[in-house]
Amino acid sequence: MKIKLNRQSDQTLIHQISNIMTEKIRSGFLQEGSQLPSIRSFSKENQVSPVTISKAYALLERNGYIQVVHGKGAFVRKNELGSIHVSQRNYNWQLAIPDYIQRSQSMLNKGTEYALKFSSATIHPGLLPSVYLTNEIVAILLADPQIVTRYGAVQGDEDVRKAIRDYVQKYGDIETTPQEIIVTNGVQQGIDVVARTFIGPGDIVITEAPTYTAAIDVFRNRGAHIIPIPVDAEGMQTTILATLCLSKQPKLIYTNPTFQNPTGTVLSETRRRELLDLAQQYGFLIVEDDSWNEIYFDDNPPPPTLKALDESGHVIYLKGFSKSLAPSCRIGAIISNGTVHQRLLSAKSFADSGNPLLTQKALIPFLRSERMHVHLEKLRIALEVRRDQTIAILNKYAPQGVTWMEPKGGLNIWVSLPSNGNTDELLFKAQQAHITFLPSSACYPGEPQYHHMRISYSYPEPHELEQGVMKLCQIMHTYLQENRNIDRTNH
Amino acid sequence: MKIKLNRQSDQTLIHQISNIMTEKIRSGFLQEGSQLPSIRSFSKENQVSPVTISKAYALLERNGYIQVVHGKGAFVRKNELGSIHVSQRNYNWQLAIPDYIQRSQSMLNKGTEYALKFSSATIHPGLLPSVYLTNEIVAILLADPQIVTRYGAVQGDEDVRKAIRDYVQKYGDIETTPQEIIVTNGVQQGIDVVARTFIGPGDIVITEAPTYTAAIDVFRNRGAHIIPIPVDAEGMQTTILATLCLSKQPKLIYTNPTFQNPTGTVLSETRRRELLDLAQQYGFLIVEDDSWNEIYFDDNPPPPTLKALDESGHVIYLKGFSKSLAPSCRIGAIISNGTVHQRLLSAKSFADSGNPLLTQKALIPFLRSERMHVHLEKLRIALEVRRDQTIAILNKYAPQGVTWMEPKGGLNIWVSLPSNGNTDELLFKAQQAHITFLPSSACYPGEPQYHHMRISYSYPEPHELEQGVMKLCQIMHTYLQENRNIDRTNH
Repeated sequence: MKIKLNRQSDQTLIHQISNIMTEKIRSGFLQEGSQLPSIRSFSKENQVSPVTISKAYALLERNGYIQVVHGKGAFVRKNELGSIHVSQRNYNWQLAIPDYIQRSQSMLNKGTEYALKFSSATIHPGLLPSVYLTNEIVAILLADPQIVTRYGAVQGDEDVRKAIRDYVQKYGDIETTPQEIIVTNGVQQGIDVVARTFIGPGDIVITEAPTYTAAIDVFRNRGAHIIPIPVDAEGMQTTILATLCLSKQPKLIYTNPTFQNPTGTVLSETRRRELLDLAQQYGFLIVEDDSWNEIYFDDNPPPPTLKALDESGHVIYLKGFSKSLAPSCRIGAIISNGTVHQRLLSAKSFADSGNPLLTQKALIPFLRSERMHVHLEKLRIALEVRRDQTIAILNKYAPQGVTWMEPKGGLNIWVSLPSNGNTDELLFKAQQAHITFLPSSACYPGEPQYHHMRISYSYPEPHELEQGVMKLCQIMHTYLQENRNIDRTNH
Repeated sequence: MKIKLNRQSDQTLIHQISNIMTEKIRSGFLQEGSQLPSIRSFSKENQVSPVTISKAYALLERNGYIQVVHGKGAFVRKNELGSIHVSQRNYNWQLAIPDYIQRSQSMLNKGTEYALKFSSATIHPGLLPSVYLTNEIVAILLADPQIVTRYGAVQGDEDVRKAIRDYVQKYGDIETTPQEIIVTNGVQQGIDVVARTFIGPGDIVITEAPTYTAAIDVFRNRGAHIIPIPVDAEGMQTTILATLCLSKQPKLIYTNPTFQNPTGTVLSETRRRELLDLAQQYGFLIVEDDSWNEIYFDDNPPPPTLKALDESGHVIYLKGFSKSLAPSCRIGAIISNGTVHQRLLSAKSFADSGNPLLTQKALIPFLRSERMHVHLEKLRIALEVRRDQTIAILNKYAPQGVTWMEPKGGLNIWVSLPSNGNTDELLFKAQQAHITFLPSSACYPGEPQYHHMRISYSYPEPHELEQGVMKLCQIMHTYLQENRNIDRTNH
């Protein structure tokens, strides 16, 4: 197995090998029970000393990913809670084919059904008016049966682009035209289309740290050099960015300014303006991923979007409708201007030649109907109740030293263990109790942090939420007790 | 404007510059009426002599793409038949941002409505039973309204994967399991997911020549070194491939063995087995793009798919359902085995986190219902009639020296002008008569050929088809007369 090591890195080869193999195991590329290469062959193929490989395997075993059976070799540890079943015939030759999939953290936890799923930042279907929406969609289909047999345009159906224009004006203060909108298969594809257009090997991409897991995957896959900027209570620390710009030349900044994923923080208006000034001064692009700015609590709408404040075409605005409105349509939009728009449209064209027409037409009732705006009010209240519930339980049951940030909107709460905690380990324990969450190790483009986790309160039912968070607090308690004397400062 | 030139290439810099600019113009990246960089600045930025730039501009002008206005500069020629409207404010700074979109031929002709569209290899909606299908889809939605508010799995909905398994068994003799199937947003996304997983800068990709335009775009965007293998009446010439393998190491072969796009040829069974033997011998992957193998004429089903003959996991089978069945669902599938499957699944995950559930559920009636199989019979006959009609007109009206291959299935016919013809030029003339087709220049990954064109007979209505092909024959006649003394051997 050939892996890519960076001999100029600050990280030791042992840690690099361990991290790469961890990602291969967590993504399911190396399946449960499958055998790792022998130390001798792995060492030879990657020109690393056998001692280094041996130490990396020992680290993987300590972290619970593999099991070393004396005289037989190293095997991926079995996780009793679920596995991906793929028939294995004589496909071993395939292992010799190198690939460009550096990581795929976004696959994490997706193969398995958990009773209490705090890992998924999606809204429970019960919170959406499915019968009403189904009837609206059915009416559209019956009125024009040819919808099911027609192709859509690459850029997206014009009616949907008009509805999107109206929606982002209402919820993002954005003045745009249908001509500047490209319909995408969710925000995820929006990020991908931007990356394939503008990012190549060695280009500098800035993200928040922590940031959206799957965005890291996409930019890494393009060979980007990703530089993380830490987030505080007011979002990305723009002063650090300003200093960085003095020595490095970022090509693109990926940001999630409103109810940031995963921390839930909001970039302040002052910092939004600073960020735009920096973009003008240094000529970089800003990718504003705005998946849920309409899900705000306490009747406090967030500051204007970066796109609304942008006057010179630096912002590529990505809006998702999957998270808050229409999961089954998986529709998102890219709003941008000038030649940037033209180039993104070309990339969308060869990514998939355009979204299906059916889901585009189906999105119209979600965006346009008066009842959906009323519904959005209710959704805000329902999610605010869930947030409060989560925080109340944490206040009551979370072990000493555990902290969190109170989100003013969105679907997630960011919880931190004291520094002796490791949420990868905690996740193993939680999964045994059929609970899952997103560990912070998945959210850092550089050296990961291991003592935070993202809990999404939007998916479980209220009673599940209460029981689940309570149970999780117990698990944390036991785990932290067991590890109270461990020093992780070098981890 | 910075462009990428290859100073080691056999192609002169003049031709390279002319080709790159042609692609930028045809893709709409450089819009009608917009000004090209001055010779001086272009020369300086790309370190090419002003004389070379000047000659490239002259070539572009001769080919009809630009207009040089003395004392003012060079401008993209206006095409009166349609244009892409994008508001242009002060976004000039954007031109300084380099991108990785080398070409996007797949955008060709998509901005405009033509009366006679022979350029689009899609089936006319009138040939599909839209009312019946709409009712089936409506029944599914009403039976389970939560479909519209649920996410699908990354790999695809299980019911759909089961239906796909049954369908490819029936129409491709493929024995597979739902676990080995990944649902994609059309075949286009399938190609893209494969490319992003396995192809990076300098990797050798083999395609047929000519081949599917958008596949070239995708592999080029990954930085592949694409080597074309010519096609004859029995498809890709495997003996040439075998010789090539002695000196080069291909990583992947992209092929369209059945009713090849654009030539309509079928790879013979002997060559299919040779291709599989080569894959085993040299350890490369075969990407089998099988968009319309069920659309065969004269009751002669094509030879078994490569996937059906594959015994060692070399074939990645891409099946599309957009072309022949359900355009509005835009669903395709990737069928592969072992770790190749696992890695493709990771790539799909970060391309878009999964297809929408709605279109997946909507595809089930297309794949499963008895009536659709009856319909497919009818569709074959309808398309066979259109093929015969097209050939009858060509026989009667095509100018001397024009030749074509008779396809045994699929949607396209490949027509060749005598060697003094250039179908890019012919397209300009045809568009003035509101007729469009796909010129061969878009179908070659290496040095293009200019005297063929693909006519798709599947989209226009029968009477439009007849009139359109007749009209096109007239245009060819006039064009060839006008150019009868031109020698294009160096073109």
